[in-house]
Amino acid sequence: MIAIDGQRLLGRIRELGAVGRDSEGRLIRLAASDTDRQGRDLFVGWLRQAALDVAIDRVGNIFGIWQSPENTGQAPLLIGSHIDTVIDAGIYDGCYGVLAGLEVIETLKASGFSPSRPVAVAAFTNEEGVRYTPDMMGSLVHAGGVSAETVLAAVGTDGSVLGQELARIGYAGDREPGFLKPHAYLELHIEQGPVLEREGLPIGAVENLQGISWQRVTIDGVANHAGTTPMSMRNDAGHAAARVITFLLDRTKASNAPTVATVGTIRFEPNAINVIPSRAVFTIDLRDPDERRLQAAEAALAAYLELAATENVTISVEQLARFEPVIFDLGIVERIEAAARTRGLGVRRMTSGAGHDAQMLARIAPAAMIFVPSADGISHNPREHTDDAELVAGANILLDVAAQLAK
Amino acid sequence: MIAIDGQRLLGRIRELGAVGRDSEGRLIRLAASDTDRQGRDLFVGWLRQAALDVAIDRVGNIFGIWQSPENTGQAPLLIGSHIDTVIDAGIYDGCYGVLAGLEVIETLKASGFSPSRPVAVAAFTNEEGVRYTPDMMGSLVHAGGVSAETVLAAVGTDGSVLGQELARIGYAGDREPGFLKPHAYLELHIEQGPVLEREGLPIGAVENLQGISWQRVTIDGVANHAGTTPMSMRNDAGHAAARVITFLLDRTKASNAPTVATVGTIRFEPNAINVIPSRAVFTIDLRDPDERRLQAAEAALAAYLELAATENVTISVEQLARFEPVIFDLGIVERIEAAARTRGLGVRRMTSGAGHDAQMLARIAPAAMIFVPSADGISHNPREHTDDAELVAGANILLDVAAQLAK
Repeated sequence: MIAIDGQRLLGRIRELGAVGRDSEGRLIRLAASDTDRQGRDLFVGWLRQAALDVAIDRVGNIFGIWQSPENTGQAPLLIGSHIDTVIDAGIYDGCYGVLAGLEVIETLKASGFSPSRPVAVAAFTNEEGVRYTPDMMGSLVHAGGVSAETVLAAVGTDGSVLGQELARIGYAGDREPGFLKPHAYLELHIEQGPVLEREGLPIGAVENLQGISWQRVTIDGVANHAGTTPMSMRNDAGHAAARVITFLLDRTKASNAPTVATVGTIRFEPNAINVIPSRAVFTIDLRDPDERRLQAAEAALAAYLELAATENVTISVEQLARFEPVIFDLGIVERIEAAARTRGLGVRRMTSGAGHDAQMLARIAPAAMIFVPSADGISHNPREHTDDAELVAGANILLDVAAQLAK
Repeated sequence: MIAIDGQRLLGRIRELGAVGRDSEGRLIRLAASDTDRQGRDLFVGWLRQAALDVAIDRVGNIFGIWQSPENTGQAPLLIGSHIDTVIDAGIYDGCYGVLAGLEVIETLKASGFSPSRPVAVAAFTNEEGVRYTPDMMGSLVHAGGVSAETVLAAVGTDGSVLGQELARIGYAGDREPGFLKPHAYLELHIEQGPVLEREGLPIGAVENLQGISWQRVTIDGVANHAGTTPMSMRNDAGHAAARVITFLLDRTKASNAPTVATVGTIRFEPNAINVIPSRAVFTIDLRDPDERRLQAAEAALAAYLELAATENVTISVEQLARFEPVIFDLGIVERIEAAARTRGLGVRRMTSGAGHDAQMLARIAPAAMIFVPSADGISHNPREHTDDAELVAGANILLDVAAQLAK
């Protein structure tokens, strides 16, 4: 049984993780920034060292393609993820999957494996969505979900324009987005959640990905003096907000369904200790792997908001994002499970709670994901950690499944 | 029946209200600032025009004293309030009471009234507490509640030291705080609440002042990914905060007691849409005219916080301020009611929901307050408004009661 070169993979993860550190040591490689260029340059250098064909499309997606005259007409197996990061990131999110994809190709090449179709590794532009909206941008364009022109005109939080920034850093490529039509898509990723660690399992076979509903709720009441306004004469936007949040989170927690609900941001106006809030604004993050259940949660929230709006406040809701759940390819999921068992590794089917490039690629090809454990479930944080042995084990499962799909 | 000069009073309120406007037209006369000096200079000028003895104590409290060789040994009747303001203030809060006090003295003098005791008007330093803590500072010092040295060392939100600022603006006086021991204390003020307007009454005889309990609650949980952390594995500080707020405000609203509860400020950390809050910090403003009921509300909150703290979060509480309720002098309250009826003005006894200098003076002398209506209950806001006729009516009640107490 062939195996990837663990030291090479781990060394590259660390080398890439050292690129883009600010003066406080924080890892920041926002999409199409100067530090993103440094990370891209390092990755492309490794692609060329591995003698892969490098292709860059107009939205900056990078592909390293291993093909031969015999198989170049076939739809390739694509392995991908992203190398952009959030602010003050860990070193594994995205990068692990991209570098493991490269590692798998190099291992297969070195082993004398002769694939019936090309095998390619992709680093998709702006998965994180921190600088430009929406997230998973490069893979969304690749899957045809939005035009290249639209995203190239995206204006960043810093006022920059993505198309100009890609040109500036030398990654506005000439390939038409979507040029590479995959036979299948694989993505290896850290779990970014606590499930595998809690259950002591090294491998997750990701069978689906939660649907996401992001909403911003704005409640308007009337500011008044906290001491002189009787409770019965108040239009307290903060009180209404607390009730809505309590309702939603209590309901979700009590349901015992896989639905998750989070209120991560809130602000009151005028935000003074002795003034009744005239306005409360908060966000709701609702997720569920089942579209009907997600819709039921949205409907329950909407019904409660209508009820709350009768109590002397007005409520408006803005939908910030909405993605339907994604069902991954059962055949690939079963191959992941079988590969784990063959290597004696514990495995379970699971749901991805976070969004990934795989959900976009699933629109155009059979796709699935492999998860490895995240210590304490932490991600988007310098404390993001997965043990070396687990990183190597996950890459070997990727190797096994890729070899099957490219045979 | 003598009456105050309404045009003179209204003109002075407007003239003082024009002092301290910033480039956007906002009224800002924070304690011991340059604009406060301008307001003080205008007021002292009027005191001198009225031929009153001007005395300034070491914490900047200003007194205009009308006394004669015959009554100078008697304890004076004191009428007071403040002329410092909040940021973006209205023109009535405090200033109305001070200028009406001056107006009453001038009217009594001009009428040939011969008081048996001195009559004085006071403008107390830093009632608002915006720049320096605590609020009602000057009257607190006057009543012996804190030493002059302590408050002169107070460091402001802008890093300034009160004692230095008073010296700089020329209002670090030479009189020892508390030098004037009043026979009785009167304060006329806008209601800053909706009760008089709602009931169509021009005069409030303020019989007591609510006790105040200000607390800051900090709830610590664990930040985690909103998509990947099952509801059962969360330590959601925001969820716990919403429950506490809902409990407290629902309980207070349902009680039908005069207790009022306000949560005016809140913040989450890290405050990201897709991250479970690791920390929620919010403030609670609890008020009640009855000390036992206020303590019961505090106890109910504390019991609920203990309950909430069992749910995977830790909760800490900081007491920011605590004042017991104040009972004003019944004899003076009855005089206010009688004076209103004599003038044919509707009157009701009421509770002050806000803090006032009168609550400090009540520690050392019989004291009470007169309220006039606030349009829409609004105060601490440029929209603060009381009709001219109501302002004049309130000042005439002050005149009548002052004449009785100084006879």
